[in-house]
Amino acid sequence: MISGNRMHLDSILSYASAGCLLSLHHSEKPEHEEVCEFRPYTCPCPGASCKWQGSLEAVMPHLMHAHKSITTLQGEDIVFLATDINLPGAVDWVMMQSCFGHHFMLVLEKQEKYEGHQQFFAIVLLIGTRKQAENFAYRLELNGNRRRLTWEATPRSIHDGVAAAIMNSDCLVFDTSIAHLFADNGNLGINVTISMC
Amino acid sequence: MISGNRMHLDSILSYASAGCLLSLHHSEKPEHEEVCEFRPYTCPCPGASCKWQGSLEAVMPHLMHAHKSITTLQGEDIVFLATDINLPGAVDWVMMQSCFGHHFMLVLEKQEKYEGHQQFFAIVLLIGTRKQAENFAYRLELNGNRRRLTWEATPRSIHDGVAAAIMNSDCLVFDTSIAHLFADNGNLGINVTISMC
Repeated sequence: MISGNRMHLDSILSYASAGCLLSLHHSEKPEHEEVCEFRPYTCPCPGASCKWQGSLEAVMPHLMHAHKSITTLQGEDIVFLATDINLPGAVDWVMMQSCFGHHFMLVLEKQEKYEGHQQFFAIVLLIGTRKQAENFAYRLELNGNRRRLTWEATPRSIHDGVAAAIMNSDCLVFDTSIAHLFADNGNLGINVTISMC
Repeated sequence: MISGNRMHLDSILSYASAGCLLSLHHSEKPEHEEVCEFRPYTCPCPGASCKWQGSLEAVMPHLMHAHKSITTLQGEDIVFLATDINLPGAVDWVMMQSCFGHHFMLVLEKQEKYEGHQQFFAIVLLIGTRKQAENFAYRLELNGNRRRLTWEATPRSIHDGVAAAIMNSDCLVFDTSIAHLFADNGNLGINVTISMC
């Protein structure tokens, strides 16, 4: 009984100091921690090389301080220009878009999810909570040569990150043939429009 | 010289009786025959099991006679409902759409272009020439769960067929995860809109 109790006590510790008041059995702990709003935010930059963690309010200052090279564009309707899409291997393109008083991170990732089949994954993240993200919609559009490919969805919170969305193809997915159809001289322009809903 | 001449003569024979007046060196023959407007039309049904060939005017009568099971819907804006998308292996779904005084063939094909990675390819073909096809545009749309995936392009002529378009991903391409995001009980509705341009 005592050791059971100890495990129970252990299981509420993770984000309790951050404000989480829940008390769960240890078996429910991993599942809850995944969605706990008090779980610290990690650096949203793809690639996972930056180990920073902190509060939501600290994310933008962190990006501006530690990832100065990320371009920011203002406005609801911008062009995310990915240069040199033919670069070999796994590559990430990242930029920020500011509108409606919020900051959005645009990510284009090239990777080989299936061996021998390189694909591109494009997605918009809100620097905000999942609840805040539900107030917005985004549209990604590839245009050219009498063709258009469009993906519309709800932005993901940076709290959820991009990995699961890419795993489930819950984003704009296209292969290198499509990229070449729309690219101009190795550069791919993606029209990004964010709206409130 | 004589044998060279004979080869030249041979090279104009293929579709000359159908009306092609071109005379080309034999080395140019395969390339021209691929695009020759006098090349007979083959049955546009995917799968290549039907060996029928004939003139453009004979295609619709052939489809109505030999492929009676293909559904036809009237109108510019219809829903192409693909049932049982989870059926294993390579599967084709086909239907006809009639509007603007023309017949269009809608094809959804599931195949494993890359080993271990099943994908869906959706495309609209015009029962007509490539030149006629350029007067139209089509839109394919998957809708649901606060997400929308849209592909807009020029219909392909059945003279060109679907194989090359699928090879180059020059159509709506999505994987089984995306299909499940939009499917309802194993059935996938694709909104198809055809317009003149």
